[in-house]
Formats: sequence, structure tokens, C-alpha cells
Amino acid sequence: MSGYTVADHLVDRLAELGVDRVFGVPGDYSLAMLDHVTHHPTVRWTGCTNELNAGYAADGYGRLRGIAALCTTFGVGELSAINAIAGAYAEHVPVVHVVGAPALTAQAQRRPVHHTLGDGVFGHFTAMHADITCARASLTPENAVAEIDRVLRAVRDRRLPGYLVVPADVAAAPVPEATTPLPPAVDTTDPEALAGLVDAARRLLETAASPDDVAVLAGLIVHRLGAAETLADLLAAGPLPHATTPWAKSLVDESAPRFAGTYTGAASPPATRTAVEDAAVLIVAGVTFTDLDSGMFTQHITRNRTIDVGPRSATVGAATFAPVELPTALAALRPLVAEVAARRSGPAPSEPLAAPTPAADAAPDDQALSQTSLWREVSAALRTGDVVLADQGTSFYGMAPHRLPAGVTFVGQPLWASIGYTLPALLGTCTAHPGHRGVLLIGDGAAQMTATELATVLRERIPAVIVVVDNDGYTVERAIHGPAEPYNDIARWDWPTLARAMGDGEHLAATRATTVGELRAAFADATEHPDRVTLVQAVVPRDDVPDLLAALTRVLGARPTPEPAPEPAR
Amino acid sequence: MSGYTVADHLVDRLAELGVDRVFGVPGDYSLAMLDHVTHHPTVRWTGCTNELNAGYAADGYGRLRGIAALCTTFGVGELSAINAIAGAYAEHVPVVHVVGAPALTAQAQRRPVHHTLGDGVFGHFTAMHADITCARASLTPENAVAEIDRVLRAVRDRRLPGYLVVPADVAAAPVPEATTPLPPAVDTTDPEALAGLVDAARRLLETAASPDDVAVLAGLIVHRLGAAETLADLLAAGPLPHATTPWAKSLVDESAPRFAGTYTGAASPPATRTAVEDAAVLIVAGVTFTDLDSGMFTQHITRNRTIDVGPRSATVGAATFAPVELPTALAALRPLVAEVAARRSGPAPSEPLAAPTPAADAAPDDQALSQTSLWREVSAALRTGDVVLADQGTSFYGMAPHRLPAGVTFVGQPLWASIGYTLPALLGTCTAHPGHRGVLLIGDGAAQMTATELATVLRERIPAVIVVVDNDGYTVERAIHGPAEPYNDIARWDWPTLARAMGDGEHLAATRATTVGELRAAFADATEHPDRVTLVQAVVPRDDVPDLLAALTRVLGARPTPEPAPEPAR
Repeated sequence: MSGYTVADHLVDRLAELGVDRVFGVPGDYSLAMLDHVTHHPTVRWTGCTNELNAGYAADGYGRLRGIAALCTTFGVGELSAINAIAGAYAEHVPVVHVVGAPALTAQAQRRPVHHTLGDGVFGHFTAMHADITCARASLTPENAVAEIDRVLRAVRDRRLPGYLVVPADVAAAPVPEATTPLPPAVDTTDPEALAGLVDAARRLLETAASPDDVAVLAGLIVHRLGAAETLADLLAAGPLPHATTPWAKSLVDESAPRFAGTYTGAASPPATRTAVEDAAVLIVAGVTFTDLDSGMFTQHITRNRTIDVGPRSATVGAATFAPVELPTALAALRPLVAEVAARRSGPAPSEPLAAPTPAADAAPDDQALSQTSLWREVSAALRTGDVVLADQGTSFYGMAPHRLPAGVTFVGQPLWASIGYTLPALLGTCTAHPGHRGVLLIGDGAAQMTATELATVLRERIPAVIVVVDNDGYTVERAIHGPAEPYNDIARWDWPTLARAMGDGEHLAATRATTVGELRAAFADATEHPDRVTLVQAVVPRDDVPDLLAALTRVLGARPTPEPAPEPAR
Repeated sequence: MSGYTVADHLVDRLAELGVDRVFGVPGDYSLAMLDHVTHHPTVRWTGCTNELNAGYAADGYGRLRGIAALCTTFGVGELSAINAIAGAYAEHVPVVHVVGAPALTAQAQRRPVHHTLGDGVFGHFTAMHADITCARASLTPENAVAEIDRVLRAVRDRRLPGYLVVPADVAAAPVPEATTPLPPAVDTTDPEALAGLVDAARRLLETAASPDDVAVLAGLIVHRLGAAETLADLLAAGPLPHATTPWAKSLVDESAPRFAGTYTGAASPPATRTAVEDAAVLIVAGVTFTDLDSGMFTQHITRNRTIDVGPRSATVGAATFAPVELPTALAALRPLVAEVAARRSGPAPSEPLAAPTPAADAAPDDQALSQTSLWREVSAALRTGDVVLADQGTSFYGMAPHRLPAGVTFVGQPLWASIGYTLPALLGTCTAHPGHRGVLLIGDGAAQMTATELATVLRERIPAVIVVVDNDGYTVERAIHGPAEPYNDIARWDWPTLARAMGDGEHLAATRATTVGELRAAFADATEHPDRVTLVQAVVPRDDVPDLLAALTRVLGARPTPEPAPEPAR
């Protein structure tokens, strides 16, 4: 038996799946567990200032690493983090939430201990996780090994959060050390369903004269199911014109000539809309049309010309083939696209389908920052390898239409849309992806939600440029309703001073920018000192909004809310 | 019909119950609702930096005002606040949580809109509130008036949180204006049960030779049920020696000579323990013995000498009488105590039962701050009318044993024990109790959790003294486990600079104190400038702990956790 415990088994299994950081906040019920994290040879503890932020950090880590771990304490800790877990569920991010709980001995006596409702009932908070996790377990010494393995496999295979309650005495209970790794995921694809898909897809693709008439619209799920390379192979086989939705931004190389832009229904640029909506055959891969990802449900996809590949099923016209897993389906479509490509007469077109990334020197240094110049300059300053996080406000809408350089990772949260998310997520993405620079773009109202985590970004010496968009309030909401109402006002902060109060000044360059030149200087300084955190408080006019947000607001305005919106074509 | 809407009905009913502030964070689903808050003649909107903090602020307001309101947006907002709502449930605080939701038209179409899980299901988050609210409703134009009234009455009468989902289109739906106020609460006491209680209590009290042999131990529920004055009358009828648990601190006038101190089981001072445990007859009123409120379940209460008055039932020895409401029971016991007092020979004793409040000038100015000198000096600086908030760390344990001056209100959270709670709660208590000075006592680790709300405290010009105890980490946890483990470390902040970055410098005096003299100077400065926020970063040794915490840790240490603790006498 040696001294091997339930906590050791859990941390070893997390390490086996690729976790090298556990995020969280300690609590007395989780301390026994945390000893096994801090003493593990390959896993590090990263304490955050609060549990919601730790949950966001874990989510950011999970998006890039494919799995993440969060550890909190019973009741107060886990409920503080629950919004982050619900967000991970909505956005398909695999996060294992480990909760340190009162000892089973105290539970058996139904004791009114702290961090409970005082009623001697210990299952309330597990019940609250039922709809937002794909698997849950309350560990005992007897079930711990099997239940840990079951929950971790579900998280890994379903790409959704899981929940493990570890009572303090169970964490320390002896278990035998595992001798075999977790079994790999199984492809559930039915060969006959796959064959049916291929036949139907081939018949539809035969209606296309050349690969230039076959377009691809790719969505988030392709990334989550680890099929980005399979998709890239499919696109290259044409090459096919292609677009992504905003949710899937950076899934494909946006510098490629056949990239047609970011598709947002009626709010898309005309060239993008034409490429997607007018294709003779459209392959839709891993797309869920949510409101903010579809121009408020204004997508126009004609079913009888569409091959739609979902996570576990695919349709061609009106026919559905299931179970067929998305990576398998995309791989099977590639030779069909190659057949179409073989029919091409002459070379593939090389002119870019979408507008180019804006030039860096288009404006004089003394031009005032605006929602237009800010995002143009930020886009121009991005470099291969950067991880860009755009908070769900003007930052997201400002950046979404800009083409990214190859090799830039983009993180946003347009379904769950919890403002403030990206600041702690920066901590997660940059620890998951060491050696890459983080570029955080966030509004002042959003940044105030989670600002305390700047301290951890500084303490962990995360290399990052942080742009806090100072527009004096909740501008996205002003654009929707109540532009002059006091509920959209916030207190104005001095962000450079705030950052200096929270950490080591030597590792920080913090400044305020009101002009294009000042912003450029901050990015230039960041390039010279890549080990630093560069914080820029970028001042823009209060009611200025990015073009995409204005377009979405127009789409919304064209449809009065009380009247039911028409069902989209799909 | 005029222009009167569901939102108007809700805000008017809240105002009728005594709400003059609504705390929260705006979101697009709640903006239509908030217009009716900002335009109400007597209710103000108080926007917070995030929803957890807004929930804590509402909790603080509800403790002093008897009811509070919180408004958040669907999904992201309400789940961020859910820890505060669970805490309000555990600690019996009436908070109405109003959630702005997607329009019923969008819900009917099962649209994957933002702030949802994307599955077209809109009931997930209501279900998550089932165990932590006493009443819930999802409003429609048809049910809104009846459901609002039902939920608000439940919150008022049960002193627990309630939950109202208001879809954006329902908020704006017309309803007739109410013509009568909500019906008052009904006393459910059964007269025969009450008569039985009085008979049994009289027989037990007859065994006491004088009121000096009859003690009272009072708990939190007396406060929550609005029975503090009824209790004071009962105590005066003896006068009876009496104590409270820490959870009920400031329920009674702690400067009274018959106040025997704060009872914490085996961790109590000897005089307090004797007064409670050795009384010939003990009246226990509204007490729930939780772990941190009972010296880890070391209370020693002998049932056959005890009259135990609970919220809706009372026991005398082994006999239970129900339904009997606590305020009614306490009122009925008063003449019985007067009968005992009539048997007294000679005058009532006048020597104080508990140790006096420590003198202010007991130490030289250059004495270094420690957990002993810090709480002694803070106690000495308190004035009648102050509202003291002590966070559940060394602040709570440091202050709990000190006698408070008459007319000081004390707020702690020893059951839910969510660290960081008190900083936003300061905003709530001081807006509920205008004209009173707030004194916030909080550790650095706790304050980092919710520090962003300092901005709102400054913006709202809350008159307060804020003492941030800088001991470089989670000292309470170090005392329990892992004193040198990295998970108990936090980043060290410059709190005066942080506060200056968040608000108007003119309204703020922020300083660092390492000696008794520097702390005294800060309090003296606060007295001279009562309209300011005075922030003191009080530096104490890292591993120093208050005596009560050391005593509790000893009690814990005397009982190894894996072995079941013995059942307490009660």
C-alpha cells in the first residue's frame, strides 16, 4: 500500500492527461488535497485571488491544453466558481473541478459545519452542478479510483467540465497505485453511416464544377474535437474558399488567400456573405448558430446544398447519418474534395478573398484613438505565436472582423459572454502555452469585474500586453439600451497605478494612451521587453462602437423584440 | 391600465417593504427592468463592480434593513452571485434576487441566445436556486403580480432569500397598480402549545432560588426574527446573567453588567463558561450550535435544566411545544422571570460578569502591532453607532471576545464563512444604516477576493474606517494546516496606492501602520474627518493568531479528525 493516497491517484491521472497546473483558492477542507499538488513532480499549484477568477483561468488553460483542473473548497469556493464552470460547459471546455469537502465522519453525523447551509445536508452543491457538468462523483475510499477514472474519461472524451467532491479524509485514504493508463477514447462512428455520408456527399459535390464552387464554414466544435489539422487538410485539398464564425476565430490560417473572412449572417462583409451563402455546395463543420455568432440568427444556409458535419452526426440535404464523429467525417470528405479538385481546369485562383490586415503605418502618430484606430493598430501589432484574448464587449466585436496573422490563437466567449472572463483566462492560456505572448483586450467595465487577478499575472511573470479600453462604462450596453442611464456608468480607475499597487514594478510597464502613437510606443516597448507585463489604458470616446457591433445593433433594431423573429433558413 | 408595468409593481412592492437601494450589475436582459429602478422616486440603483460583490452588499443591507434586493442578468450574472445567495440562506438574510432573462418570445423558440448553455433550455439556473431560496418564480404577464407578491411575502416572513426571473418582455408588460399593501405576517403560535410551554417553564424556573441562578444564552435567530427588544425586556426582568454566541454578537448591550461574554464552548473564557454551563436554569434563545459558533461542538448544555426557544418551537427538558414562534415565546417567558425576580432577597448584583473593554492607553505608541494589540486598539476606538464588520479570519476571532460599547452593530458570517464577504457588505450595511460609521476589519487574503468593491465604497462616499490586516497570506489556514506551504501565500499589495487608483483622492485617507501609535493616529484622523474613507494597511507578524483562534485550533487538535467526534450534550 505504501503511502499512496486518493489525492495522489487524482493528481497523477490529471498529469497523465496533460495537466501541469492546478488553479484555485485554498480552503481548510482542501488543504490535505493540496499537499499532494504542491509536492507533485510535474504539477504546479497556481493560487488565484478568488474562485471565479481561478475558474476562468482554468477555462483559458483548458481551451489551449485540452484539459484543465480547478480546486476549490466546499460551498463558498465551488459556488463562487460555478459561473466559470457553467461557461466552460456552454463553450465546450474540459475543466475538472475538484472540491475539498468536510470529512465523511462529519457528514455521517450531519454536523452543521462551516461552508454548509447548517442543515446537515451535504449534497446541495453537487445537485447544483447537475446541468453544467458531464459527470460528477462524491468520493469515498472505496469508490475513489473508479469514480475518478470515470469522471476524467468523460471530461476528456466529451470536452465538457466534470465535478469531483473529495472529502478531507478521503483525500488521505490509501489506494493502490494505478499500473495502467486510462483507456483511450473510442471512435463510435458506424461504418455504414459513414459510407452513407460519403455516398450522399459525393453526389452533392458532383454538382460543383470546380473547388471554387465548394465553400466551407467552420465552427468552434472543430477546434474542441481536436480536428483543426483534419480541417486544414480538407481545405488544402481544394483549395476551398472558407470562412469561420466569430466563435471559431483562429481555427484556420486567416492569412491564407482562400480565407473569406468571419461570417456573421447579415452583419458579414459582402464578400464573406457571398462566399458562404452563394456557394454551389457548402460544407458546414462544427457550427452552432448562436445569436452573437450568427448576426442575431440572420445566417442564410440552404439545406439542400449543404453538407453539415456535427459533433456526432452529419447531414447531407435532408438525410442524417449517425453516429459519425466529426474528425472521422472531415477526414472522409477530403478525398471527395480531391476528386472535385481534379476536375479543375487551370491553376487555383490566388487573389485574396477577404480584405487584408490593415497596414500599421496608415495613420499619423497624433491621431486620437477610436474604436476604429485602436483595433486596427492592435491587429497590426500582432505577431505569429501571440495568444489574443478579446473580452465580450467592444474588444470582441472590434477584433472579430480583422484578419489575424498565421499562428495567432484567438480566445473569446461569445455564447456564455461573461464579461471580465478574459483577464483571468490570460493567466490560464499563457501558462498552458508557455513562451507565447498574451495580448489581452478588455473594456474597463469588464476589467473591473476581475481586476484582482492582475496580481497573479504579475506574480507569475506572464509575458503579456494588456489593453484596457477606457470608455467610461458599459459601452456595449449603452449601444443596446439606456445610453445615458446611470446603470451604465462605472467608477473611473487609474489602471497603471492599480497595477503598480498589485505587483513587482520591475516586471511591469504601465501607461495611458490617448493617441495612435502612444499605443504604438507601448507595443514597441513590449517587443523590446518581452518578459514584462505591458499594461495600456487606452482612452477612446465613450459612445464610439466598432462597426460590427453597430451592424448587429442595426440587425436587432430591424426586428422589434416582442415580435417573434422569423425562423432562420437553418 | 396607464403605463404601469410588471417592473413598476415589483419595485413598488420592494419599496413598500423598506428597500431604498437595489444592488447589482446591469446586463442586456435586465436593462428594461433597471429603467424602473433608476426612475423610481424612493429607490436608488447601486451598481457594483461584479455580481458576487453586489450579492454581498445586498446581504449586508438585508441584515440591517430586514430586506434587500439584488438585480443581475441571466446565467452569467446570477451564477456569479449564487455564493452570496447561498450565504444569505445559511445566515438567514432576506435578499430578493431579481434576474433579468431573455424575452419569453426567445424562450418559446428555444433559441441558443447568449448567457445560456446554448441548448434552448431556460430553466437550468432556476433549478440551481432550489435549495438556497425559500421561494422562486418565473414571471409571465399573467402570473407576475401574484407571483411577485407570493415570493416577497415568503422572503419577508421566512427571513430567507427569494428568486424572481423577469424576462425582458415581461418587465415591460402592463399590469394594474396594486391598491392594497401586502398582507402582514401571521403569528402561527398555537395557544395551547404556548400555555404548555409556560406551565413547563414555570415549573423549571421554580427550581431557581433567584434570577442570578437563571442564565440566558442568545443566538442569531433572535436578531433575524426581530426579537432583540423582546429579549432585552426578558433580560431586564431579572436582571438575568446572559451571554451570546459569536454569531449573535451585538444582539445584546455588551456593556451591561450582567453580560457574561461570548460563549464558544470549551474555548470560552472561564467566567462565561461558568455563567452558561453551571446555571440552575438556562434559557437558550435562537441558537444553532455550528462548529465555529460552539468551539467545535464543545458546548455543554444540560437538557433537563434548559428552556430552549427555537424559531417555531420550544422545548423544556424533553418536552417540545409547537408551533410557538420565538418572539411570542420570549414575551411569554418574561412574566415568569419577573416571578423569579420577586423572590430575590436584596439588590441585584452590580459587578460586571465579563472582562471590561481594554483601555485605550495601555500600551506605548511605539509598540509594534500584533494580533493582541491590533484588536485591543480597534476595540478601544469603537464608538456608539458604529457598524463593525469582521471578516471570517483573524478579524472575527480577534474581535469576538472583546466587549463592544453599547449601540455598536457587529456583522460576521461564521457559518457560511465566505472570506472577502465583509468588504462589499460594508457598502450594504452603511447604505442601510446611513449616518453610521462603518468599521471594516479584514485580512489581506480575504480583501484580495473582493477588493474591486473599494471603488464603489469610494464612489458612494461611505463613511468608513477600513483595516486591512497585512499578514502576508491566509493566516487562519496556516494555523490549521500547511504553515509553510505555498498555497497559503498571496501576492503582497500596496493597499493605500490601490485605493487611490480606484477613486477620488479627496474622499480618501490611506496609510500603512506598523505600530500602535500609527493605528491610533489613523483612527484619530478618521474622527476628525468623518466623511472620509480611512484605509489602514495594518502590518502584523505572519504567523501571529488571536487567542480565540489558538484556543479553537487546540480544541481541534485535541480531537483527531478521522475519529468521530463525540456527540455534544445537545
